[in-house]
Amino acid sequence: MKILEDRILKDGVVKAGNVLKVDSFLNHQMDIELFNEMGKEWKRLFAGENITKILTIEASGIGIAVIAAQYFNVPVVFAKKSQSLNLDGDLYTSKVESFTHGRVYDVVVSKKFLHEDDNVLIIDDFLANGNALVGLIDIAGQAGAKVAGIGIAVEKLFQGGGDMLRAKGYHIESLAMVESMSEDGLTFGKR
Amino acid sequence: MKILEDRILKDGVVKAGNVLKVDSFLNHQMDIELFNEMGKEWKRLFAGENITKILTIEASGIGIAVIAAQYFNVPVVFAKKSQSLNLDGDLYTSKVESFTHGRVYDVVVSKKFLHEDDNVLIIDDFLANGNALVGLIDIAGQAGAKVAGIGIAVEKLFQGGGDMLRAKGYHIESLAMVESMSEDGLTFGKR
Repeated sequence: MKILEDRILKDGVVKAGNVLKVDSFLNHQMDIELFNEMGKEWKRLFAGENITKILTIEASGIGIAVIAAQYFNVPVVFAKKSQSLNLDGDLYTSKVESFTHGRVYDVVVSKKFLHEDDNVLIIDDFLANGNALVGLIDIAGQAGAKVAGIGIAVEKLFQGGGDMLRAKGYHIESLAMVESMSEDGLTFGKR
Repeated sequence: MKILEDRILKDGVVKAGNVLKVDSFLNHQMDIELFNEMGKEWKRLFAGENITKILTIEASGIGIAVIAAQYFNVPVVFAKKSQSLNLDGDLYTSKVESFTHGRVYDVVVSKKFLHEDDNVLIIDDFLANGNALVGLIDIAGQAGAKVAGIGIAVEKLFQGGGDMLRAKGYHIESLAMVESMSEDGLTFGKR
């Protein structure tokens, strides 16, 4: 998606340790006009699917998922990263290792909000090694729900998570795919 | 706001310890049509203010803030609850004690995204003792920004945080104000 790639080239910053900072428009400050263009594009790309629910993960998936949901006319459920006093005990849980934070956390979704008749679109801001997505797919599977597609803002192709999941048959639509990056620059690729 | 009050009466669940669970439509599963009605209502209530930015706090403030931002045509910045590897060191920070989780955490916002010319609307899902809001107001103050208003989905009047902040002169618009609640039922009040 050209406007997202252009925005990454303009405002993204490459940091040591394969970190691409897009916090000025995607995951700390959020550009809602851009999010609407992304939501429309996912709707176009997943037009053939009868999505019943969008599943994302706190915190930076929520903004793009909620805007996208307006184009699919479905509710959003966000997975929480640890068990809170406000959640019932009746939960789907999965363990995820965070690339950014370097630790393992539990991902939880209440059993009330995912069912076997759900056709789920998973949305998240980044796809790197795919750990968070594997956790969300696991949770959808525990509910007996179908994962109809996965919409990603920025995929880092060189970290392999996207290709690992494509090989398993998942339909992934990443709006920007970073093929290589260094402090000298960044190139995009395709799949 | 009648449709939010009605929804709380229909789907909210009162739990021990003054916990009101609204996780089926507000802060775990999210009803985006309802969020749009809430966004429109905040726009009406803060129509006189020239808002430049919406400030919220992860995770459950993000969804309502992002939808509301469409009516104000401004970016959203969400405060993060602990320092992550993805954030620069150049941060505004404040300490907040969580009612729900029973612990103290740091709230951080990058200095890049709040400035002294900002006229900020703070949005959050709950207002109880007001601790999270005090932290966000503190951060806006560190940036030299003006807090033009505070938009809340559900205020628990009996916990006093809203009245404490109104007494300091803040313009708070809570779309549902719970006056009392128990497992037998719930009543709404006004301010």
